[in-house]
Amino acid sequence: MLDSSPEFSTSIQSETTLIIGPPKQLPDLNATVDNISWDDLGKEGFIIQSLQHNGKSTIWIGGNTDQALLYGTFDFLKLLQTHQDISSLNITSIPQTKVRVLNHWDNPDRTVERGYAGSSIWDWHRLPDYIKPQYLDYARANASIGINGTVLTNVNANAQVLTPYFLKKVAALADTFRPYGIKVYLTARFSAPMEIGGLDTADPLNDDVQKWWDEKVNEIYKHIPDFGGFLVKADSEGQPGPQNYNRTQAEGANMLAKALQPHQGIVMWRAFVYSNETPDDRAKQAYNEFKPLDGKFEDNVLVQVKNGAIDFQPREPFHPLFGAMPETPLMMEFQITQEYLGQGTHLVFLGSLFEEVLDTDTYAEGPGSTVAKIVDGSLDNHSLSGMAGVSNIGTDRNWTGHQFGQANWYAFGKLAWNPRKSAANIAQEWLRMTFGNDEELVTKAKRMMLQSHEAVVNYMTPLGLHHIMGWSHHYGPGPWVTDKHRDDWTSTYYHQASSDGIGFDRTASGSNALSQYALEIQRKYEDLDSCPEKYLLWFHHLPWDYKMKSGNSLWDEIALHYQMGVEQTQGMLEDWQSIKDHVDKQRYDQVLAFLQIQHNEAKWWRDACLLYFQQFSQKPLPEGVPQPEFTLDHYQNFKPLFVPGI
Amino acid sequence: MLDSSPEFSTSIQSETTLIIGPPKQLPDLNATVDNISWDDLGKEGFIIQSLQHNGKSTIWIGGNTDQALLYGTFDFLKLLQTHQDISSLNITSIPQTKVRVLNHWDNPDRTVERGYAGSSIWDWHRLPDYIKPQYLDYARANASIGINGTVLTNVNANAQVLTPYFLKKVAALADTFRPYGIKVYLTARFSAPMEIGGLDTADPLNDDVQKWWDEKVNEIYKHIPDFGGFLVKADSEGQPGPQNYNRTQAEGANMLAKALQPHQGIVMWRAFVYSNETPDDRAKQAYNEFKPLDGKFEDNVLVQVKNGAIDFQPREPFHPLFGAMPETPLMMEFQITQEYLGQGTHLVFLGSLFEEVLDTDTYAEGPGSTVAKIVDGSLDNHSLSGMAGVSNIGTDRNWTGHQFGQANWYAFGKLAWNPRKSAANIAQEWLRMTFGNDEELVTKAKRMMLQSHEAVVNYMTPLGLHHIMGWSHHYGPGPWVTDKHRDDWTSTYYHQASSDGIGFDRTASGSNALSQYALEIQRKYEDLDSCPEKYLLWFHHLPWDYKMKSGNSLWDEIALHYQMGVEQTQGMLEDWQSIKDHVDKQRYDQVLAFLQIQHNEAKWWRDACLLYFQQFSQKPLPEGVPQPEFTLDHYQNFKPLFVPGI
Repeated sequence: MLDSSPEFSTSIQSETTLIIGPPKQLPDLNATVDNISWDDLGKEGFIIQSLQHNGKSTIWIGGNTDQALLYGTFDFLKLLQTHQDISSLNITSIPQTKVRVLNHWDNPDRTVERGYAGSSIWDWHRLPDYIKPQYLDYARANASIGINGTVLTNVNANAQVLTPYFLKKVAALADTFRPYGIKVYLTARFSAPMEIGGLDTADPLNDDVQKWWDEKVNEIYKHIPDFGGFLVKADSEGQPGPQNYNRTQAEGANMLAKALQPHQGIVMWRAFVYSNETPDDRAKQAYNEFKPLDGKFEDNVLVQVKNGAIDFQPREPFHPLFGAMPETPLMMEFQITQEYLGQGTHLVFLGSLFEEVLDTDTYAEGPGSTVAKIVDGSLDNHSLSGMAGVSNIGTDRNWTGHQFGQANWYAFGKLAWNPRKSAANIAQEWLRMTFGNDEELVTKAKRMMLQSHEAVVNYMTPLGLHHIMGWSHHYGPGPWVTDKHRDDWTSTYYHQASSDGIGFDRTASGSNALSQYALEIQRKYEDLDSCPEKYLLWFHHLPWDYKMKSGNSLWDEIALHYQMGVEQTQGMLEDWQSIKDHVDKQRYDQVLAFLQIQHNEAKWWRDACLLYFQQFSQKPLPEGVPQPEFTLDHYQNFKPLFVPGI
Repeated sequence: MLDSSPEFSTSIQSETTLIIGPPKQLPDLNATVDNISWDDLGKEGFIIQSLQHNGKSTIWIGGNTDQALLYGTFDFLKLLQTHQDISSLNITSIPQTKVRVLNHWDNPDRTVERGYAGSSIWDWHRLPDYIKPQYLDYARANASIGINGTVLTNVNANAQVLTPYFLKKVAALADTFRPYGIKVYLTARFSAPMEIGGLDTADPLNDDVQKWWDEKVNEIYKHIPDFGGFLVKADSEGQPGPQNYNRTQAEGANMLAKALQPHQGIVMWRAFVYSNETPDDRAKQAYNEFKPLDGKFEDNVLVQVKNGAIDFQPREPFHPLFGAMPETPLMMEFQITQEYLGQGTHLVFLGSLFEEVLDTDTYAEGPGSTVAKIVDGSLDNHSLSGMAGVSNIGTDRNWTGHQFGQANWYAFGKLAWNPRKSAANIAQEWLRMTFGNDEELVTKAKRMMLQSHEAVVNYMTPLGLHHIMGWSHHYGPGPWVTDKHRDDWTSTYYHQASSDGIGFDRTASGSNALSQYALEIQRKYEDLDSCPEKYLLWFHHLPWDYKMKSGNSLWDEIALHYQMGVEQTQGMLEDWQSIKDHVDKQRYDQVLAFLQIQHNEAKWWRDACLLYFQQFSQKPLPEGVPQPEFTLDHYQNFKPLFVPGI
C-alpha cells in the first residue's frame, strides 16, 4: 500500500513512528495520554492516538488484548487505504454489541441454503488434515470488520455435526480462526439426543435429555476449549422443538443454556417459530409465542429475531418483538445473502436496509427507543447483546458471487460493531478500499449503491407489498403463487389482491398485528394520513382508486413505482458505464453483465406483476409505463430451472 | 515468459523471426521448405519448421486452419517454456484421433457426479447473460493440449438440457469456445421424447420418435450451428434405452445418428450397458451385448468403451471389446477424475495407467494390434476415431482439487492427440510448464508421479483385485461390502475370498470371460505361469498358499504389496519434502497436506483389507508388515459422511 516495507521492532526505537501494544506494557506511553479509560475499552475496544513521544510525532494503537490491537490495526490500515488525514488522530472505538456472528446456512454436503456464491467454503471432507488458505483469508476478512464469531452450519442441518467425526473437523477450523478472535458456534438440532444419542425423547425437562446435552457440551469443549455455543432453529419449517413436548421456547433454550453455562457458552435461540396450522397472520406468530416468555430465559440466552416479522423481504417494518421483551436480550438477525433481493446478480446495498431498521424508533420506552438501542442492549441495560448476519459467502472467486455482495458483508460487520454508523459512510469506505480512491468512481458507485435498495423495493415490492416471489426458490416474480400446502407460503395470502383492492389489513379491522407495536406506532401506522406510504399495503387493504399523497390513484402509483425501479436500474447501468475507465476490466465486465441482468429482471418483475394485478384493478397502465413485452400467460408459464440456493 | 513483448505484424518484416500462417497465404515461404505434405496435416495438424528466409533464420508455424495454427503456437510456447533447443526445428504434428473430448458428469444443479474439485464450473443460472472469465480459461487450457470438444452434461442428466431454456445457455458456451476449436456436445436422454416431447414411447423404430429427434436436432443446430453431437448412456444403471423396446443398441444409436447426419454431427454411444439381472460375470456384459452388432452402426456413430470391463479400477486388463469389433470405430473412455483412485487427495499420475492400456497388444489382427491402433482407427482404417476423458475439473481454485490432478487432464489431452506418447515424457513436460525447469524438482517430482500409479494399485487393489471400495461413494476400503440389491455392486462378488482362496475365476473353469479375448491373450492369461501377476486375481481364484514367482505364498505377497504401497506413499512424501525450497509455499503446503492424507489412507487401506482377508487366510502377517492400528470392527464401523461426488 505504501510501496515500502515497514521495519518491525519489539521495543520503541528512536525512529519508531507507530506503536502497537497494550497500556500495561507501555507505561511511559500511557503517562503521556489523558482521558483514556482503559476499563471501558474492555477486551475488544481500541484507541488510535497521535502523541509526542521522545520529542517525536508518534501514533499509538492501543487496547487491552491482542484482539483489540488487531482491530485497531485494521482500522488504522483502513485510514491509510481510504486516504484519511492521520496527522492528528484521537480515535476510541468500542464495539456496541458483544456477539457479532455470521450464520452460515451451509450444509455438510457443501450445498448452501440460499447461497448464490458457489458452494460452501467448508471443505468438510478434507478437514481436519487440510487447512485451505481461504480459511485464513476468511478469518482475516472477518476480523478486519470486527466479526468475532461464526456459526458454521445451517440452522436446518442434521445432528451429525455434533458427532466426533465432525467435531474434529470443527476443532481444526476453530484452531485456524482463534488467532483472529473468531469463535466457532454450531447449530444444535433439538432432536439430537434421539438421532445420535439413542434416547427416545428430546423433552427439555427430561433428566436424561439434560444429562445428554451436558455431556455432549463437555465433549465439544474438550475439542474446542473456547467454543462459542449453539444457534437453534426449533419449531419452525419442520424442525423439531419444545412444542413437540408441550414445553415453551424458554424451557427448550434454557436446557441448552444450562449445559453451556459452566463453559461460558451461549445459546442463540431463533424467534422464527411458527406452528403447523396456518395462522390468520404469520406476522403475529413470533410475538405471540415469545412475548409471554420475557424474563424467563437463562442469562446466557440471546433470542435471535429477524429484522421483520415475515422473512427478509426487500422492505419490512421492524419486528414487533423489538421493544416488547425488555427483560430479554434480543439479537438482530439480518440476511446478508440476497434470498429475496435479487440473489446472485442484483446490486443491492443492504447497508441502507440495515440502517433503516436500526434507526427506527420503537417507542418502547418513549421516543428515542430505536431498534439499535434494543439490539446493543443499552435501552434495557443488558450486558449480553449481538447481531447475526446470514452469510453470503461461497467458493466463488470473489467470495460473494457479486462483487458488490462484499459490501453487504462489510456493512454487516461495521453495523454490528456500531449500529449507528451511517450506510453512506460505510459505502464510501468500502468503495475506497475495494476500488481505490478515484473520486469519480467513488461518487458514482456510491450513488448506485445508495439508491439500490429503494430501486429493488420499487421493482419488486413497492408500497408495502411483500412475499410475492417465485415459489420455493424465491427467484423472480410470482404474485400468482397460490393453493400451496400452507396458505402463508403463498403470494395471494400476502397481497390479498381482488377487484376491491390490494394489501394486507393488519389494523383492528383486520389481523390487528399492529396491536403488537407500541401505541405511538399503532396510532401512526393505522391512520392512513400518517402511515408512511412505504408501509401502506403492509398494514392496509385499499381500493385501487385510493388517492395517494401524490394525487395518483393507488393503481397508478403502484405501476409508477415499478417503472421507477426499472429506471433506477437503467441509471445504475449508465453510472457504471460512465466509470468504465476507472475500474479494472475484469471487475468492470462482471458488474456490467450483472447490472444488465438486473435491469432485464426489473422489467420482468414490472411486467409480470402489473399484468397480474391488472386483472383485478381493470385499469390501464398510466402514462410513462410501457406495455409489457409478453402476456401474463407467458410470465406465469416461465419456470426457471435449477435455481441456486435451495 | 521471455521478459519482453513480441511485436506483431500482419506481413513479414525484415526483423521477423517467427511466422504464423497457412501455406496458401505464404507461397514464398512454402517454396523454401521441402517434404511438407499439407494435405496430410488436415484441418488440425501443424508444422514448426526452422528455415532461412530473406537470408535470416526464421521459424514457421504452419497449418491449414486457424485451429491448426493455434495448436502449433501452443506447442511452440511449450518448447520455450520447457527450455527446449529451438535452433533447428522440424516438427510435424497431426492428431491421431479425430474426436478428443472431455465428458463432464456435471449436473444442472452444479453438483458433479464423481467430482472432487468443488462444484460444476458451468454457472447455468447466470448463463447466457454472464460469461465467466473461467470459460475462456477453460477453452484456452483445452486448446493448448489439443482437446477439441466437450460434453457439457452428465450422462445421467435428465432431458431438460435439450429444452430451449437450456439450449440458449449452451449456445452461449459454444460461442465462447468456438474460437478455440472446441465443439460442444450434449447428453441425450433416451426417453426425452416422452419426458419433454409429449410422446408415449421412445421406441427408436417408431416414426414419430424418429421425427421428434430429427426436429429436436434441427432446433439444436439453429442455436449452435457447429454442434458436435450426442453422448448417450442407455440401458445402464437405471437409464432408459432401446432394451425397453426390445431393440438393439445399434437401433438406438442409429436413430440419433440419422437425425445428426444432415448436420455432420456424431453419436458417442457408451458400451457401459448391463441388464437389470445380475450376471454371472459383469465383465462379460458389454462384449455380449455389442460384439454381435459389429458393422451395424451408422457411419457417424462411435461406440465409447471404458478402458476396462468393470469400472475405472486402479488397474484393469484392457476391455475385451477392443479388437472384437473391427467394423465399428471404438472410442476410448478414460476417467480423469479419480473415482476409484484416491478421489480428491491422492497423487496418482494417470498417464501411466492410460499408457499401459494403450500399449497393450490385443492380438486382434496378429501381434502389434495394440489398443492404441484400435482407438486411433489405424488398425481397421476407420476415418472416425476418438478418445473421451471423464473430467476432473471443478470450481476449486486450482481447477482439479489436487495440484497434480492437472497433470491427468494434461496427460489425457496429450494421449488423445498421440496415443503413443510416453507417460514419462508427458510428466516431464507438465512439470516443467507447471513448476518450472528446476532440475532437482523435475527429477524428484517426476519420480513421484511415475511410481504413483503402481503405489495406488499396491495399497488398494494389488495383484488383480478390484472393486473393493466403500459402498456407493467408493471412498476408502470396503472389502466387506456385501448383500446389496445387486451382487455385482458388492465387493465380495469381485474378490470371492473364502477359506479356500481369493480371486475371480474368469478362465474356462469359471465365468470364462477370458474367451472374449484373442487366442494369444487367452493362452497367456489362462496359464498361471504366463499370466502377468498384476492380473492374477482378476482371472484366477487361487488358494492362500499358492506359490508366487517371488517364492512367497499368495497371502504373504498380497500383504507385502499393501505394505509396499504404504512405503511408496512414504517415499513420495519424503521426495516432496526434499524439494520444499524449489516450490512456492502455497502449492508446496497443499501438496504436502494431501500427500500426508494419502499416506494415512494407504495405511487405512492396508490395515482394513489385510484384517478382512485374514479372516479367510487364517495366516499371520509376514515380516515387514506391521500389525494394524485398530480392529477389523473399527474399520467396518467407520462410516465416512458426506463424501463428495455422489
